Amino acid sequence: VHDAALRDLRSVLGDRYVISDPDVRAPHEVDWTGRWRGVAAAVVRPGSAEEVLEVVQVARRHGVQLVPQGGNTGLVGGATPRDGQVVVDLRRLRELGPVDEQAAQVTAGAGATLTSLQAHARAHGLELAVDLGARDTATIGGMVATNAGGTHVVRYGPMRAQLLGIEVVLGTGALVQANLAGLLKDNTGYDLVGLLCGSEGTLGIITRTRLRLVPAPRTRLALLLGFSSVTDAVAALPHLRARSSLAAVEMMRRDGIELVADHLGVAFPLQPVPVCTLLVELIGDDGEADAGVLVAATGVSDASTAVATDEVGAAGLWRWREGHPEAAAARGLVHKADVTLPFDELSTFNTRIDDAIERVAPGALTIVYGHLADGNLHVNVVGPAADDEQPVDAVLDLVLQLGGSVSAEHGIGVAKRRWVVRQRGETAVAAMQAVKSALDPDGILNPGVLLPDAR
Amino acid sequence: VHDAALRDLRSVLGDRYVISDPDVRAPHEVDWTGRWRGVAAAVVRPGSAEEVLEVVQVARRHGVQLVPQGGNTGLVGGATPRDGQVVVDLRRLRELGPVDEQAAQVTAGAGATLTSLQAHARAHGLELAVDLGARDTATIGGMVATNAGGTHVVRYGPMRAQLLGIEVVLGTGALVQANLAGLLKDNTGYDLVGLLCGSEGTLGIITRTRLRLVPAPRTRLALLLGFSSVTDAVAALPHLRARSSLAAVEMMRRDGIELVADHLGVAFPLQPVPVCTLLVELIGDDGEADAGVLVAATGVSDASTAVATDEVGAAGLWRWREGHPEAAAARGLVHKADVTLPFDELSTFNTRIDDAIERVAPGALTIVYGHLADGNLHVNVVGPAADDEQPVDAVLDLVLQLGGSVSAEHGIGVAKRRWVVRQRGETAVAAMQAVKSALDPDGILNPGVLLPDAR
Repeated sequence: VHDAALRDLRSVLGDRYVISDPDVRAPHEVDWTGRWRGVAAAVVRPGSAEEVLEVVQVARRHGVQLVPQGGNTGLVGGATPRDGQVVVDLRRLRELGPVDEQAAQVTAGAGATLTSLQAHARAHGLELAVDLGARDTATIGGMVATNAGGTHVVRYGPMRAQLLGIEVVLGTGALVQANLAGLLKDNTGYDLVGLLCGSEGTLGIITRTRLRLVPAPRTRLALLLGFSSVTDAVAALPHLRARSSLAAVEMMRRDGIELVADHLGVAFPLQPVPVCTLLVELIGDDGEADAGVLVAATGVSDASTAVATDEVGAAGLWRWREGHPEAAAARGLVHKADVTLPFDELSTFNTRIDDAIERVAPGALTIVYGHLADGNLHVNVVGPAADDEQPVDAVLDLVLQLGGSVSAEHGIGVAKRRWVVRQRGETAVAAMQAVKSALDPDGILNPGVLLPDAR
Repeated sequence: VHDAALRDLRSVLGDRYVISDPDVRAPHEVDWTGRWRGVAAAVVRPGSAEEVLEVVQVARRHGVQLVPQGGNTGLVGGATPRDGQVVVDLRRLRELGPVDEQAAQVTAGAGATLTSLQAHARAHGLELAVDLGARDTATIGGMVATNAGGTHVVRYGPMRAQLLGIEVVLGTGALVQANLAGLLKDNTGYDLVGLLCGSEGTLGIITRTRLRLVPAPRTRLALLLGFSSVTDAVAALPHLRARSSLAAVEMMRRDGIELVADHLGVAFPLQPVPVCTLLVELIGDDGEADAGVLVAATGVSDASTAVATDEVGAAGLWRWREGHPEAAAARGLVHKADVTLPFDELSTFNTRIDDAIERVAPGALTIVYGHLADGNLHVNVVGPAADDEQPVDAVLDLVLQLGGSVSAEHGIGVAKRRWVVRQRGETAVAAMQAVKSALDPDGILNPGVLLPDAR
């Protein structure tokens, strides 16, 4: 990066917010997984949308490439600089507007953490429907840019379903505001809001968002349902969906539960451990009655059922699900795949995945769990070397054979770029490249992320 | 249009499906309101996505402009030819795939009518969540292209929320398929599905859709709640939203109800007629209990409440709402505005709208009703001459002053093009124009619709 560019950035933001010190830059130059890293020319910290606009204009003028970054909790290298780029740290844009109780909405700066937003909303009996483990660090802008998901998508949808309005600086160097008033119906042209959501910083830098909130549930009930096969668990899904109180459906396999039991040093509530267990969350005032109806409808026996009606009990059951990635990580470096399958292929996938991994990584430990009602499974593989891409490739290859998606929640980033054409098809990728050229004509925003290199 | 273009179209589709006969063309050349018309060079009727692709390629080769058309039930001239264009009638693409009960989804051809889709889905206990009066004629492709709304948006969202996947021929001459498998999570690049929804035929011609279905409710309860002001009705909205059974919230004013009473020749169930009445629909098994809770929460007296617990009674209450446009039409030519207001401006809008119209159209009859929980009101004005744009302009002007949207459901089409820049802002419109150029570089798809002319 040309010295003149840094000089211009300093004159726009002040010296304090253009960071060249390698020690201060360092945490911005490596991603959360440790797999992606690069040396940034600088880290800049704009304090307003107008300053972001000026940063983009400086970048356009000098041909500098920008990497937008929020909490840096992504898993696919989408916010990590390649050498020589400027990281745009958006965490100073953390302002939260007043909670609009009538509309159940709030305006949030891109840099606000999820935790700060949830505290703000819950003071009004509301919450953001998308919640995730990295909440103390993950920012709203990053969650929007990656269309984050999580455990409650079955009820509320992903971030795109929460997002009503956006303020963004496009790669064209234009500041665009779209429906920051949060109007529920606005059929006046293209859905730029939805388009920016999930674009991974490649079309624009999100500076503000208008978000839908949902009532914070007064009660949450957790329920374990044991099944003798994944097929039986999948067959139970329509009965679960029929309950209007349904808020989560998480799947765990026996081998994963046994690993977690070993890790936590406690016994699973259902014994013998079922081949496949669903952890179901119900919200609302009629949780127990609902749970009873649900157990009857699915035909699961009392011996294969456990219910927790209070917060402590529910947290205890959720520990089993949350223990999966922890227990895997305790065994060594984890290769992660995050995939969606058509419902009628979930059982086939589950049957074939262990053999598929065993073929390329003999003796590896494979655990499978995830958000079953979305068809979304997480596959964790422990054993192969850090640079061995064969295990994840084997998973994604099987997913494509079965008509699924190679990225359910995590996005493409750098990690899955070479899968995009196989996933979406040549013509769809060409359309995406045309949209990219339209909104970031000079290719200054997050190059090397999401799209394959132009051919 | 050049003879060579028509010859090529005939060789692609066969003579039978390239229609030049003025009598057969006629119904395609005027819109449902009668306000928009033009002479088409031809009407073509492709029978497959591949034939649509060939039509677009012929059009590109010869510089022919295309106007995609479904059931031709739009209200803003978005599917009406201007002179010399070729209308692409998509109603032969009416194939419906098998209903997937596990996923609660179906694949529908763009030309399938809403009625045919609903019959197909209801045979499996499911339905499309978006329903509307023009159901026998309106096509799924048109509903997607306009992001149709209706009475149940408060519960299920508009068409965009039902749309999981799409098959489309872009203006670039490429056939794109995106998530026709209906995967619930697929974070692998830009949301082309959502972008095409609401694009009014200006980016691509939709040929197939993958749609989410919802359980057909076993019971529907209708409830009238009378309020002494619009302010009080708006204040009741959070109590209504708190009921998980809520499916519709329609607002009616006293003057509109008195007009309908006169038109139907029957007395309104609530006497004296309240200043503002909400028609509320609740679904599920606990309708009556829910209605009781809701009446108590909103503090409406028994005298201002009417409940219908069976289909016939509910239909009787819905007649009052549905009678509004009918009663207006019976009085003469209706000028229609379809707008959204921020919740905290709904009452102000209601107070100021009558004066605003009286100023430009003294003595006009103005009725206001609509989907209150979405902030979406329909304003009908009877009295001014057909070509008098002042009444609707006065409505839209007030809407923009109050921070609302000039088109909630109906779209932009030709009718509201000159409002787009004021609504969305220069930079957003420039971004939309860039997207248009990216996906329809020769401007052959529905020119003159949605976007203002390039400056």
